[in-house]
Amino acid sequence: MTRISYLNGEFIDHDKAFVHIEDRGFQFADAVYEGIAFFNGKILDLGPHMVRLKRSLSELSIQFDVEGSNLEAAMEKLIARNDLSEGFIYLQISRGRAPRNYAFPNPPVKPTVVLTVSPLDMKAIQERQKNGVKIILVEENRWSRPDIKSTSLLGNILAKEAAWQADAYEAVYVDRDGFVTEGTSSNIWMITRDDILLTRKTDGAILAGVTRGSMMKAVSGVEQRRFTREELLAAKAAFLTGTTTFVMPVVQIDGEKIGDEKPGPLLEKLVKIYADYIKAETGFGG
Amino acid sequence: MTRISYLNGEFIDHDKAFVHIEDRGFQFADAVYEGIAFFNGKILDLGPHMVRLKRSLSELSIQFDVEGSNLEAAMEKLIARNDLSEGFIYLQISRGRAPRNYAFPNPPVKPTVVLTVSPLDMKAIQERQKNGVKIILVEENRWSRPDIKSTSLLGNILAKEAAWQADAYEAVYVDRDGFVTEGTSSNIWMITRDDILLTRKTDGAILAGVTRGSMMKAVSGVEQRRFTREELLAAKAAFLTGTTTFVMPVVQIDGEKIGDEKPGPLLEKLVKIYADYIKAETGFGG
Repeated sequence: MTRISYLNGEFIDHDKAFVHIEDRGFQFADAVYEGIAFFNGKILDLGPHMVRLKRSLSELSIQFDVEGSNLEAAMEKLIARNDLSEGFIYLQISRGRAPRNYAFPNPPVKPTVVLTVSPLDMKAIQERQKNGVKIILVEENRWSRPDIKSTSLLGNILAKEAAWQADAYEAVYVDRDGFVTEGTSSNIWMITRDDILLTRKTDGAILAGVTRGSMMKAVSGVEQRRFTREELLAAKAAFLTGTTTFVMPVVQIDGEKIGDEKPGPLLEKLVKIYADYIKAETGFGG
Repeated sequence: MTRISYLNGEFIDHDKAFVHIEDRGFQFADAVYEGIAFFNGKILDLGPHMVRLKRSLSELSIQFDVEGSNLEAAMEKLIARNDLSEGFIYLQISRGRAPRNYAFPNPPVKPTVVLTVSPLDMKAIQERQKNGVKIILVEENRWSRPDIKSTSLLGNILAKEAAWQADAYEAVYVDRDGFVTEGTSSNIWMITRDDILLTRKTDGAILAGVTRGSMMKAVSGVEQRRFTREELLAAKAAFLTGTTTFVMPVVQIDGEKIGDEKPGPLLEKLVKIYADYIKAETGFGG
C-alpha cells in the first residue's frame, strides 16, 4: 500500500511530499510540531495537543488559523487512508517559504503544514514497560525555550544519540544548578522514599507534556516541583511519560540501578493507570 | 532569467528545488550551513569556510566528503549560471532523509546538499557602513553550541526579528554573567578608550566568524578576550563583522549613542581595511 501524507491541504504519496529548500523550517528551524497518538483509529488527547500547538504558534508569531484549517478532519482522513488502527501522527507547521533572511517575512507568507502517520509498535512498548528502560543524564544545553514545541531539536537529537550509543532509551537533562529538567522527548517523574510522586513544574524549563498532563489528572496528589540529580538517584522509582513513551518505568540511571531489577508494583500500577486511560478514551486495549 | 539552485548534484530551477518532508534538516534542524560572499565572480575566503564546514559536519557526525564532492566547482558553476558578479552563496548540508526518529539513521543516509546564490546589495551595505547601524542587546538564550554553524537558528531569528522591530540592524547577545557573546549573524568588536581593539575569543560561546578571522589577520594587535555589557557601552567605538555584514560600524546600542553620530576615522579605517582585503583577494572595488 502506498503511504499517504498530508501537505498544505493535499493528500499525496509520502515519497512525493516535498517542501521548498527555502522553507524556513528547513533553513532556520522556524517551525512547531506536535506528536499525537491514536488507538482504534481514535485520536488521543487532541484537545490538549491543539491548545499547545496554538501556544507554540503564538509564541513564534506564526499566523496560522488552527480552528479554520480543520486539522482534525485531515488527521482522521490520513489515518483512514493509511489504513492504520494504532499509530503516531506527526504534525509540523513552519513559517513557510521565503527568501532567506533572519527576520520574519513581511508581509507574512503562507505557513507550510505537514501531517504524516506511522504505526506504533505496541508490543515493543509493552515489552519495554515490563522490563523498564535505562536512561543517561546529560548536561542541559538547549536554548531557553523548551516550553515551545519547536523543531529546534539539534541538541535533543545529539543527546538522544548519546543515549542510544550508551544502550539507553533516553537522555534526561540536568541543568547547571543540578536540577533535572526533562528527557529529550519525554518528561521525567520520580517517587520518593516517602512515596511522594514528583515531577517538575512547567516553569519554562520543560515542555508541558500532554501525557504528563493526562497522568496528572489520573493520579491524585502529584507534587510539582524541581528535584535534583541526587534526589532522582536516591528515588524509590522513576518513570518517563510521553506520547510514544507512554508511562515508561526507568530501572537504571547512568549505569546505577534505581529501585528493583524490574518495575515493581508501584510502577506497574502507574503503567496500568495510563493504559486504562487510553482504554477509557479510545476503547483500545485489554 | 530563471534562478538556478543546486540540489544533490543537480542544477535546477530554484522554484523546483525541494527536499523531502522527512529530511532531518526540516524535522530536527539536523543540518549545517555556510554563507559565502563572492565578488567579480570570485569566491572570498573559500578555504576558511570549508575548514569550518568540515568542523561543523564532524561535530554532528554527518558523514559527507567535502573534498570529494567538489563544492567549489558547483559554486562557480552556480554563480555563472545565475549570471551574478557580486553575491552570496548559501550552502546547507543536512543529515538527509530518514523516517522520523531522534537518533541518527543507522546505517547513515545520504546527506542533502543545497546551494543557492543571491545578489548582494553593495550600495545598501556601503550606505550602512557610512552611517553606522543601531543594535540592541538581548539575553543569550541559545543552546550551548553556537560554535557549530548549524541551522538550529530559531533563537537567532527571534532575536533578529526583535532587533528589526526596534528599528535596529542586529541583536547582540549578553550571557547571564554579563559578558557579550556575539550577534545573531555577526561577531562584535569594540575599541576601548585606550584604543585597544577587542573581540571575544572563540571560546565555544561564539561562532568563529570568517570575516572576524580575516580582520584578525589584516589588523595587528587585536586583543581576544571576553568583555562585559558595561565595557561595550563605555567603548570608544564598536563594530560588527560578518559575511554579509562586512565591517559594520555601530553608532547606537539600546538607544544609547556610542562614539559619534557617524562613524569616525578609526571605524572608517577598519571599513577600508576590509574593503582593501576584498579588493586584494578578488579585484573588486574602488
